[in-house]
Amino acid sequence: MPVTTAATFCATLVDEWVRAGVTDAVVAPGSRSTPLAVALTDRPDLRVHIHHDERSASFLALGLGLATGRPAVLLCTSGTAAAHFHAAVIEAHQAEVPLVVCTADRPPELRDVSAPQTVDQDHLYGTAVRWFCDPGVPEEALRATWRSLAARAVADALAPRPGPVHLNLPFRDPLVGEPGALPPGRPDGWPWHVSTTGPTHVAASDLDVLAPLLDSQRGVIVAGAGAGDPLAVHWLAATASWPVLADPRSGCRVPEPTTVGAFDALLRHAGFAADHTPGVVLRLGQPPASKVLNQWLAGSGARQVQVGATAAWIDPEHSAAVRVVADPTELCIALEKRVTGAKGTPWLARWQHAEGQAQAAIDAALRAYQEPTEPAAARTLLAALPTGAVLVASSSMPIRDLEWYGTPRDGVRVLANRGANGIDGVVSTAVGAALGSNAPTALLIGDIALLHDGNGLLGAVGRDIDLTIVVVDNDGGGIFSFLPQASVLPNDRFEQLFGTPHGVDPAALAAVHGIPTLPWDELTDALAKGPGVRLVHVRTDRAANVAVHDDINRAVIAALG
Amino acid sequence: MPVTTAATFCATLVDEWVRAGVTDAVVAPGSRSTPLAVALTDRPDLRVHIHHDERSASFLALGLGLATGRPAVLLCTSGTAAAHFHAAVIEAHQAEVPLVVCTADRPPELRDVSAPQTVDQDHLYGTAVRWFCDPGVPEEALRATWRSLAARAVADALAPRPGPVHLNLPFRDPLVGEPGALPPGRPDGWPWHVSTTGPTHVAASDLDVLAPLLDSQRGVIVAGAGAGDPLAVHWLAATASWPVLADPRSGCRVPEPTTVGAFDALLRHAGFAADHTPGVVLRLGQPPASKVLNQWLAGSGARQVQVGATAAWIDPEHSAAVRVVADPTELCIALEKRVTGAKGTPWLARWQHAEGQAQAAIDAALRAYQEPTEPAAARTLLAALPTGAVLVASSSMPIRDLEWYGTPRDGVRVLANRGANGIDGVVSTAVGAALGSNAPTALLIGDIALLHDGNGLLGAVGRDIDLTIVVVDNDGGGIFSFLPQASVLPNDRFEQLFGTPHGVDPAALAAVHGIPTLPWDELTDALAKGPGVRLVHVRTDRAANVAVHDDINRAVIAALG
Repeated sequence: MPVTTAATFCATLVDEWVRAGVTDAVVAPGSRSTPLAVALTDRPDLRVHIHHDERSASFLALGLGLATGRPAVLLCTSGTAAAHFHAAVIEAHQAEVPLVVCTADRPPELRDVSAPQTVDQDHLYGTAVRWFCDPGVPEEALRATWRSLAARAVADALAPRPGPVHLNLPFRDPLVGEPGALPPGRPDGWPWHVSTTGPTHVAASDLDVLAPLLDSQRGVIVAGAGAGDPLAVHWLAATASWPVLADPRSGCRVPEPTTVGAFDALLRHAGFAADHTPGVVLRLGQPPASKVLNQWLAGSGARQVQVGATAAWIDPEHSAAVRVVADPTELCIALEKRVTGAKGTPWLARWQHAEGQAQAAIDAALRAYQEPTEPAAARTLLAALPTGAVLVASSSMPIRDLEWYGTPRDGVRVLANRGANGIDGVVSTAVGAALGSNAPTALLIGDIALLHDGNGLLGAVGRDIDLTIVVVDNDGGGIFSFLPQASVLPNDRFEQLFGTPHGVDPAALAAVHGIPTLPWDELTDALAKGPGVRLVHVRTDRAANVAVHDDINRAVIAALG
Repeated sequence: MPVTTAATFCATLVDEWVRAGVTDAVVAPGSRSTPLAVALTDRPDLRVHIHHDERSASFLALGLGLATGRPAVLLCTSGTAAAHFHAAVIEAHQAEVPLVVCTADRPPELRDVSAPQTVDQDHLYGTAVRWFCDPGVPEEALRATWRSLAARAVADALAPRPGPVHLNLPFRDPLVGEPGALPPGRPDGWPWHVSTTGPTHVAASDLDVLAPLLDSQRGVIVAGAGAGDPLAVHWLAATASWPVLADPRSGCRVPEPTTVGAFDALLRHAGFAADHTPGVVLRLGQPPASKVLNQWLAGSGARQVQVGATAAWIDPEHSAAVRVVADPTELCIALEKRVTGAKGTPWLARWQHAEGQAQAAIDAALRAYQEPTEPAAARTLLAALPTGAVLVASSSMPIRDLEWYGTPRDGVRVLANRGANGIDGVVSTAVGAALGSNAPTALLIGDIALLHDGNGLLGAVGRDIDLTIVVVDNDGGGIFSFLPQASVLPNDRFEQLFGTPHGVDPAALAAVHGIPTLPWDELTDALAKGPGVRLVHVRTDRAANVAVHDDINRAVIAALG
């Protein structure tokens, strides 16, 4: 093979990415992307994952970034291939997941002349990327800039706000070649650029404003994804004598005395909700999914402090009185030193007592069902996972069932695509999370989301993962049964537009991809199988599912009295 | 149900669309889109097709537009759902297929505050749409503008350059309601606006320039998709004594004396190619896929006239001497009146003779194979289709095999997504084409494209179509075996990045969706089955396939002497 500038350029990018800590690349096959695809597979210190469907490939890369905090490099050929990355790019943007997207392109002279597989890839992902760059066809004269390009892509994907970066890379024929000598990197082995993470420390003057709020006698911490170190959060909560209403994704739903997991069910008790209206709310990270919680907070008149590590504006209820851009862990540690707390009042004890009653009532209510229910699937799966496991929860019902009914526990990391809350790409995200975490991984998913990303199963058995896919199969869109559409529309119209039964057997779909299926009562066996992929099929009923939720919520209300 | 402005607004849009000739809508389920989804299904004079996967839904809508020339209305909910339309929107843009894309959105106050399922949908498809409009949350005060909005969406999707239009439609709760009285439409039943198709007639002064060129003794017409009426094209060709090198998608590959179908094979004969270098080329519509043809034309030094009905720039080889924006049919008819032609020279006769020899040589070469080959699958399928049928050909090899080896015939319409030449969405495009054409429809597709749009099979058996899917299954990316990557890279690397075997059995995938599979030797039975969907499985081998193509091309070269 002849030495080509394109091959040297691509080998330089890859060398720089490895220096910058990139460990994984995801490649969707194509011709125009050949120089970079070959350069990626030339490196034994990179794992390269091939996927035929760019959409699934992009969510696999997203899952890698979600699990590791490092950007995966994602590559496709020119044309509409690049458009299939769009949803994952938006999710990476909104969920702040680092990702380096590389789209091969035709050179400028082949654009807008009806040449094949050529589309306008310039700023293809609009406002969703941290940086867009088209460096032009590689030229030797610019070799001194190549390492900067690669290192900056990673740096911008990581800080100050993690997210996707888009490099559009045009190549001319010939597409196959050998790299020549690379431009030298930093002799100390560092990447060409690194970014610091930015000003996320807490200024003393800010603490002066915040600390007095934490002395409220009626405060709650709401911990969502990105809430910071659970130890720091609960330490602050204990000092303040405040409960932590903990989304499972926060990492804070652990067996601590300050943990409240059943907040959704508790706040459905009108009396409890009214009696426990907070005066101050410290919101850490993303909001939980619970509408009941969010509306209770919005209607509380409480002074709400919203804390996030980045400049993202997190306030869907328009209720944040104070917005803090700071590292939540650092903030909790700093505040804890300044807080005296609500000790001597029954505030925290009442939350603790209610949490205990709610958890017992949920258990009792679920024991009444012989057949597996959707809430039980979420609760049981979370409890059954081995320590160190990862649980990926799909939108839209699984993440809610887990949030509403998951028992506090240690040692399981809960991940979900809640940047845009889509049901798309979930299987692939779980495959990526399993690859990135190198840990036993479970996916809790509904049948529609499984079908939507059925291609996520493609090649999964050949990847180095331990993945158990628990599919809650109610043959349609289960969440819609909870919405006004279900009660207002005639049943046939509701089924046509929202129920949307499809009749596809998840086990048959899995079998197409060489994935075995186990029944629900073999869940424990499935989770213990080790490397490989398997599906656990839980058949449920959409109408009955609403009744089950009502049952549980009534049981909690009854327990609270 | 209460009367809501949103319901009235949506019912008005739908009423106007029906007036404007819209017959089909494609809806991907969701909640935010409820007002428009309900309004669409309220109309018994609209067909509404539900699809769980927005990507497949969008290509289904594209297929409807491709087959009918009328825009389908395509609807999804807010969030990343809209991003899954992107590839089909780009294809609709570049292939000039009318399409009205409606994305439901959260209202402005829920944007950019981390509200669920809310992403930046403003100009989401960038430069790929003819018109983007976000009219804001429906307000009664603006009811006089609603019909204009709907009618303009259809008008802009149709003329002067057909393509996609994007309406971003924010809705507030409540999402379910009854429409009140609609604002009155035009009393004559017309839509609020219609557009004329624009200045595509041929000016007399332009004819003065073009007509003398057609008197060249050595001219060829190259007819691609969008070439105009085949009768007009061949009438002009006969008068000029020029051959028509006819892409099957042009409709011009019919049994006329001026038809040359085997141009790719003929031009691989260096002597023939050199002896038949044209002086003038009239290119009608899109370029064919054949690289051999396009490079021969580019290297010919011929004066090339590129004709297209719209302002799109069609000239990947940068060789168009004259660019004509005019209706190709009108142009051919007008030119025919002004041409005297190359009569008395052997030019056309030599092309005709070579075409006859090539077709016979292809037949003979294919008869040598016991097992079905990929060229034979394309040739046989095209020949076997009943009159009135539609054939959808996938990128990347099927469209080429059809172009290179399809025998001229009448009565079959050949469609393909060659705007961006992707292998994406092809199954769904065929489903849409079958729905739109109401005709027996066949799809010729490779295994990778089938897998890529496996979700196109979702619900297909429940739709009112007669569709035979012929899958040429070589367990991987067959076209790459023809590229330099195959000869230069080590075999294991080639297989990893390009060959990419997947091991999925297309018949098993089809069975998941209730679709039966027949062997290749039952093709005729399959095509005669009538309403329903079936798959015909043709197992081939990637390496052998290259040899088969070489064989055929050598046979044609030998026949020419």
